[in-house]
Amino acid sequence: MRVLILGIDGYIGWPLALHLLDRGNEVSGMDNFYTRKRVKEVHSNSAIRIGSMKNRIRKVKEQTGKEISFIRGDVSDPDLMYAAVKATRPECVIHLAEQRSAPYSMIGLKQASETLQKNMIGTINLVYALKDHSPNCHLIKLGTMGEYGTPNIDIPEGFFDVEYMGRRDYLPFPRNAGSWYHWSKVHDSNNLMFANKVWGIPVTDVMQGVVYGTRTDALTRHRSSTRFDIDEVWGTALNRFCAQAVAGLPITPYGKGGQTRGFLSLDDSIQCLTIAAENPPDAGEYRVFNQFDDYYSVMDLAMEVKRIFDQKHTNPAVIQNVPNPRIEKEAHYYNPEMKKLRELGYRPRRSLQDGISEMIKDLERHKKTILSLKDVIMPRTEWKESRGLS
Amino acid sequence: MRVLILGIDGYIGWPLALHLLDRGNEVSGMDNFYTRKRVKEVHSNSAIRIGSMKNRIRKVKEQTGKEISFIRGDVSDPDLMYAAVKATRPECVIHLAEQRSAPYSMIGLKQASETLQKNMIGTINLVYALKDHSPNCHLIKLGTMGEYGTPNIDIPEGFFDVEYMGRRDYLPFPRNAGSWYHWSKVHDSNNLMFANKVWGIPVTDVMQGVVYGTRTDALTRHRSSTRFDIDEVWGTALNRFCAQAVAGLPITPYGKGGQTRGFLSLDDSIQCLTIAAENPPDAGEYRVFNQFDDYYSVMDLAMEVKRIFDQKHTNPAVIQNVPNPRIEKEAHYYNPEMKKLRELGYRPRRSLQDGISEMIKDLERHKKTILSLKDVIMPRTEWKESRGLS
Repeated sequence: MRVLILGIDGYIGWPLALHLLDRGNEVSGMDNFYTRKRVKEVHSNSAIRIGSMKNRIRKVKEQTGKEISFIRGDVSDPDLMYAAVKATRPECVIHLAEQRSAPYSMIGLKQASETLQKNMIGTINLVYALKDHSPNCHLIKLGTMGEYGTPNIDIPEGFFDVEYMGRRDYLPFPRNAGSWYHWSKVHDSNNLMFANKVWGIPVTDVMQGVVYGTRTDALTRHRSSTRFDIDEVWGTALNRFCAQAVAGLPITPYGKGGQTRGFLSLDDSIQCLTIAAENPPDAGEYRVFNQFDDYYSVMDLAMEVKRIFDQKHTNPAVIQNVPNPRIEKEAHYYNPEMKKLRELGYRPRRSLQDGISEMIKDLERHKKTILSLKDVIMPRTEWKESRGLS
Repeated sequence: MRVLILGIDGYIGWPLALHLLDRGNEVSGMDNFYTRKRVKEVHSNSAIRIGSMKNRIRKVKEQTGKEISFIRGDVSDPDLMYAAVKATRPECVIHLAEQRSAPYSMIGLKQASETLQKNMIGTINLVYALKDHSPNCHLIKLGTMGEYGTPNIDIPEGFFDVEYMGRRDYLPFPRNAGSWYHWSKVHDSNNLMFANKVWGIPVTDVMQGVVYGTRTDALTRHRSSTRFDIDEVWGTALNRFCAQAVAGLPITPYGKGGQTRGFLSLDDSIQCLTIAAENPPDAGEYRVFNQFDDYYSVMDLAMEVKRIFDQKHTNPAVIQNVPNPRIEKEAHYYNPEMKKLRELGYRPRRSLQDGISEMIKDLERHKKTILSLKDVIMPRTEWKESRGLS
């Protein structure tokens, strides 16, 4: 299968490319190295060093004889997006090329506008390029479980049966996101649902949980690494907790830590995306997958990291709840459905405990880098204080 | 009250300004004359001639001694938006300054991107300017009944009680729009709901039906006119039907004409917006108003125009159903709620029949202009054929 990965340089993009290549697919990729650049803007960096795209691709060529074709460019540029689709004639596009940080989107108006515009326009450009040049191509789009928020009812996979005032319909499940970033993903989902209705583009819209981990089978096989962010803007909860423990810094759940979210390992994320790619929707279908392994409260994860860390270290890890910079419920009902990927064969490959152990082990080798980043780990980006003109 | 009207040069903006001024408010306005320009891009024009903003304001000054302060500028420019809020210190902002045509947004990728970006960013800029400089200012935002689509259940005002899998919540009603324009309004509603949650900005989000008519009491008092579009891109159903009848052209419902929508007269739209402004939400409240007088199928409206036209003319009007350029249901359930404005005192002032009679009478004087526009009245912008790169 010809697969085009938008955002191939990212945390998920690179190990996904290796995995799909190893499964015999023809892999192309596009990236504007936006994350590398933006991470430096907040004086941070990947805690695990990664090679340049050029070196990554050369090494793969040496190892396998296979060529990953790469286009440097921004999906929000319509000419480039069209050129990429025409050049690669994809049967499947996996769109990971969006600004992916909630705190980044809340820094101020500039970042809010940039996130809302670029994420939306990249997706719109892609939709038009596909309808014009590859109308049967399967579009897999990365959204987030955060699109749903934390309603007091069960969360289905995208749509639900509604009974209201004595009548029934099957409708999109109401979204209620918690940052401009999360809303940009809601807007994408809405736009994709409409594009599918008008032009019949087959879409898998993936509501993904928080991804954690340093390893995947493909990374190991290729002796490669993927980026690993731990700062308050670009790092996510569990990854950051492991880095904090390793560096002897307090593990910092926000607020009471009762926020419950779906999580899955990087390896399982790649397994799920591969299952989606290999089991496309019907012609003209728009489907929504909830994609996570299990759900945990942030406080439970902090305690799990401490428990596992303490087993092998003499200085025990410390948990320190810090004021929550976000506007979110810290205690709530949470029961999302996750059936469709299981029906297609998804079985979690890595347990949470193994994932945490591996991360701690891998991060020990990067303790110095983590310590050099300690000033950007604690939360500074406060939702209420998002800057205006500056 | 100090009121800032964004989009003061528009169909609703100008008569609203006159009405609010006559009620003793201090009125400021902002506009980039985008509609005047874009209408010419599709080789059309307002069927009723309107003065320049300069002349409009001068005439008001001569009539009343009162000054409408005007800022020429684009709300999607954050510096200008901040400057406007700082200069006018509004207690109420009425935001009408968005690209307002569904067909325009479907012409092609360029127009789709422009509509989605500009509409969203104008609203985001306004939200940030208000939170920084006027956090208690009441924001009235014009959305559309089209945000809801045509679900098979009743449509509440923004939120509804949901029971699902044995649990309950009060959630945003699922939106399901029919063009990029309509989706841009959904995105706005979502963004406003979030801005309200984080910063407590008091918002009235108005889901308005299709507006029709040539007259309002304030326009008559001031011997002024507002623009009146009749072409396939900028005109709306009922206004276009009246123009077609007057010009001896066939009245053209799209498809079977079973599409049912909420409608209200221009005068009633202004009455409703005034009621909203004079009855602001509670501190920190986000509220949604459904704003229409009654709902009709497009075919019923065509027949009503013909019936009223034929009473006073010897050549009867002709109804000719034309292929529907849109993707929409032509027969569906439709039962939207409209309680909140009625509870605040809204009573329709103009009947549909009176509105149609007046329009026909007023448009007779512009028959020559209407005939000069006859090549741009029939539908050409097809949803399925939205252009890509061009």
